[in-house]
Amino acid sequence: VVAAASLGEFERIARYFAPLAAPGGLGLLDDVALIDGPPGQQYVLKTDAIVEGVHFFAGDPAGQVAQKLLRVNLSDLAAKGAVPVGYLLVTALPATRDERWLEAFAAGLAADQAAYGIGLLGGDSTATSGPVTLSITALGRIAAGRAVLRSGARPGDRVFVSGTLGDAALGLAALKGELGRLDAASRAFLVARYRLPQPRLALGQRLVGLARAMMDVSDGLAGDLGHLCKASGVGASIEAARLPLSPAARAAIAAEPPRLMAALAGGDDYELLFAAPPEAESALAALARDAGVPLTMIGQIEGGSGVRVLDERGAAMSLAVTGYRHF
Amino acid sequence: VVAAASLGEFERIARYFAPLAAPGGLGLLDDVALIDGPPGQQYVLKTDAIVEGVHFFAGDPAGQVAQKLLRVNLSDLAAKGAVPVGYLLVTALPATRDERWLEAFAAGLAADQAAYGIGLLGGDSTATSGPVTLSITALGRIAAGRAVLRSGARPGDRVFVSGTLGDAALGLAALKGELGRLDAASRAFLVARYRLPQPRLALGQRLVGLARAMMDVSDGLAGDLGHLCKASGVGASIEAARLPLSPAARAAIAAEPPRLMAALAGGDDYELLFAAPPEAESALAALARDAGVPLTMIGQIEGGSGVRVLDERGAAMSLAVTGYRHF
Repeated sequence: VVAAASLGEFERIARYFAPLAAPGGLGLLDDVALIDGPPGQQYVLKTDAIVEGVHFFAGDPAGQVAQKLLRVNLSDLAAKGAVPVGYLLVTALPATRDERWLEAFAAGLAADQAAYGIGLLGGDSTATSGPVTLSITALGRIAAGRAVLRSGARPGDRVFVSGTLGDAALGLAALKGELGRLDAASRAFLVARYRLPQPRLALGQRLVGLARAMMDVSDGLAGDLGHLCKASGVGASIEAARLPLSPAARAAIAAEPPRLMAALAGGDDYELLFAAPPEAESALAALARDAGVPLTMIGQIEGGSGVRVLDERGAAMSLAVTGYRHF
Repeated sequence: VVAAASLGEFERIARYFAPLAAPGGLGLLDDVALIDGPPGQQYVLKTDAIVEGVHFFAGDPAGQVAQKLLRVNLSDLAAKGAVPVGYLLVTALPATRDERWLEAFAAGLAADQAAYGIGLLGGDSTATSGPVTLSITALGRIAAGRAVLRSGARPGDRVFVSGTLGDAALGLAALKGELGRLDAASRAFLVARYRLPQPRLALGQRLVGLARAMMDVSDGLAGDLGHLCKASGVGASIEAARLPLSPAARAAIAAEPPRLMAALAGGDDYELLFAAPPEAESALAALARDAGVPLTMIGQIEGGSGVRVLDERGAAMSLAVTGYRHF
């Protein structure tokens, strides 16, 4: 008898839950479920949970915890090209969370509801003897048949990523006191990237019809690209030297080169990772300029399976860590 | 600063979450949210969580925990008259839950999926340092505009309840060793009623067009009827002598008369509570015979507000407990 926690999340899903999947559940291989909506539309459904001590710190500001919770779900809608509609919320709170905490939590939700044009559809709140445990089920809509699934990548496609990678993992390392030599502004930038994801909703919506397969980077680039490849029945190679890094991440990695792993396998960046055919490249460049978000080509889709990470000389690097383990 | 847990769930929702409600969220005053579906249809959305040590015992069989989790959500769909479509699942599990537990948990879900004709649409699983924390978002469908809300009761309507009341609360008392004089068969019946709710889906669907307002009894009759009355802007009186009791509950109450409170204010029965006009009475009697589930008239809707419980002489009883507090 193996402790359940020793099985990875993905093995656990594959073994116990994938056999339970409904047709709209896409075999639990994608980020979301799809169900029929009003004429010409589908709903995109996603649920994600965060737990104190696993996904956030007990002392994190309640408003930011609320926003992170909401945004990690919206990020999955973004990665399908969907427009958010609303959400349902479950809170399990220990008695130690006072009204001030709840008030700040609700204020964080209110701010993001205004920012993203959505509202609360329902929820449940319960007591717990354990850590704060929060989950959201987010609902989005998209033109029928237009959701960008994980499964559409083809050999010859280019692999792109939005924004910069590794910031959140470095921010977490900074919060844990592991990053020594870092100026205050860089530190603040990285911590904010960890605490407050920016779901790429507008960008995701404009990638519909350009990207052939898409997901968000939540568990780390290498692992997440592996999931996309598996769903598409392809392999991929990425070039480490092409990974887009923020100035702060560049500084942290210059000080400690092994920190490059944050960009390759660190989680919580919530950027968009997608495959697009070579002929989409100029449209993507225009879109990136328009949206003010960099889109960087980091590698390509190949036949076979698995993800190879190539160093500057084109040699395969070995990755000790292929997926992100929180904390 | 008041500890959040000292505010009741309903006050907390009203103060912090109701202001966040989207139009489809019905002000968070109903059991569910409603969103537009395919032509002529609406989706009914509900999320409910259960926590080890609050809603179930650590030693409860995992398969039954799974079924209770699913069924408490399906019960809310039943109370709107909806047909279940599918669900999303969040599990937060401590490392102590081994594969055998997960396997039994998944088997419980599989059995109920087959029984209710639904499938898993998606989910998230995470680790926790605390108790097992589980939530489901259930999705149902109903003909547009036909969902039976809490808000439709009118003075003069009769108040009905399906099945029997108090069994689950008495089952919980039995599990806690609080019920002394009870034969083994009665004890087993009451414990099963606590552990394995029977969502009244077929009945709920057939009550569409007959019931004017409906909800399930999850927190206790008096409190739940109070919520229905508040949503409808009415009051109600119920006659304690009319409460439908199972033979096992009748025996437990005969042995300890104060246990009648289980039927008035005990939770977890997951029966349907509804208001219907007097002219529906014969149709309801026929429906009850057909469905094999008793429907009992227990009181009536009145002007004003609040719920009065009347004893056998028509005098108002005072209820020390108006809502159910788990454990």
